[in-house]
Amino acid sequence: MRIILASASPARLATLKAAGIQPEVIVSGVNEDRITSPDAGNLAAALAQMKCRAVADQVEADALVIGCDSVLAFEGDIFGKPAGPVEAAGLWRRIRGHSGVLHTGHCVRRNGEEYLETASTIVHFADISDTEIDAYVATGEPLHMAGAFTIDGLGGAFVTGIEGDHHNVVGLSLPLLRDLVGDLGIAWTDLWAVTGS
Amino acid sequence: MRIILASASPARLATLKAAGIQPEVIVSGVNEDRITSPDAGNLAAALAQMKCRAVADQVEADALVIGCDSVLAFEGDIFGKPAGPVEAAGLWRRIRGHSGVLHTGHCVRRNGEEYLETASTIVHFADISDTEIDAYVATGEPLHMAGAFTIDGLGGAFVTGIEGDHHNVVGLSLPLLRDLVGDLGIAWTDLWAVTGS
Repeated sequence: MRIILASASPARLATLKAAGIQPEVIVSGVNEDRITSPDAGNLAAALAQMKCRAVADQVEADALVIGCDSVLAFEGDIFGKPAGPVEAAGLWRRIRGHSGVLHTGHCVRRNGEEYLETASTIVHFADISDTEIDAYVATGEPLHMAGAFTIDGLGGAFVTGIEGDHHNVVGLSLPLLRDLVGDLGIAWTDLWAVTGS
Repeated sequence: MRIILASASPARLATLKAAGIQPEVIVSGVNEDRITSPDAGNLAAALAQMKCRAVADQVEADALVIGCDSVLAFEGDIFGKPAGPVEAAGLWRRIRGHSGVLHTGHCVRRNGEEYLETASTIVHFADISDTEIDAYVATGEPLHMAGAFTIDGLGGAFVTGIEGDHHNVVGLSLPLLRDLVGDLGIAWTDLWAVTGS
């Protein structure tokens, strides 16, 4: 059985690999801007589903396809990747010392059977200084991440704690994925034996 | 300024490196079994302090030395690394579907000035099957970890969520370390520029 990650995110691929899953990567190429929603969890789910279905249409039916998408909800706003350094620094000046919710939609599909669920993790941001914000944004790392932060990179010291699954913040909730592949009738530990390319 | 990690843990070194810190590693060689305490947080702190001081004694005074030690507290018991596969599997049959607290003691020392603090993270374990426990223990991975689990490896899918800092569960809390080096008068982002060996 092929395992296919329908996402270009290096963080998602690294998360799966560290957990013993070796997927192939096929990027969907869907236009994420086409979908909007006032609800962050619904938006993440819709984007994950769109990615998953676009890739599932390209491969054999019995491949396991995994699609994910992440957004940060903060004070009623929804944030994907920042448009640039100015937006990233501005977001950090808002969120520092406060908490947001990182929503990641997960969609799995195999043989036309599909399961879709969003995991949500509360993220507590450290009250970092303007100097730290500028140094962090200057590294370029937060520019590629939903909510302009990384918890698994240089930003790790700038998140004081979370409530929920850490891997969900990185971009893919392993315990949720274990549940969803279980819904498809696949034992999680059996996936450890699958060798990707 | 030299940055020295007084720990043999590959997970702690990887955590620091991912966060932009490139320490040298000097293993203290202290006998951890010499110290006992009925309080898990105090025990982790005492062990971290012992490691930190043993290494600080070997290097120049202005080196920044970081010592850490982790234990899992569960239902009144304290768990370090399991003695072997049978103990690891037995612990998992107790903790699955329940929650424990992972305590990591952190000690930083430079020029004779020292700060010591324990970070504690609640860990919620998935209710995994006997088959999953056996498959997980058979990989050998949990045998080297306090509490017989990894959150950053194959065990990632077996932790449904946490409350607190994820990196603390891996073995070193980045936000706490940022605070402690701040107490020593060192700006966290300045450490990004230090090149280790």
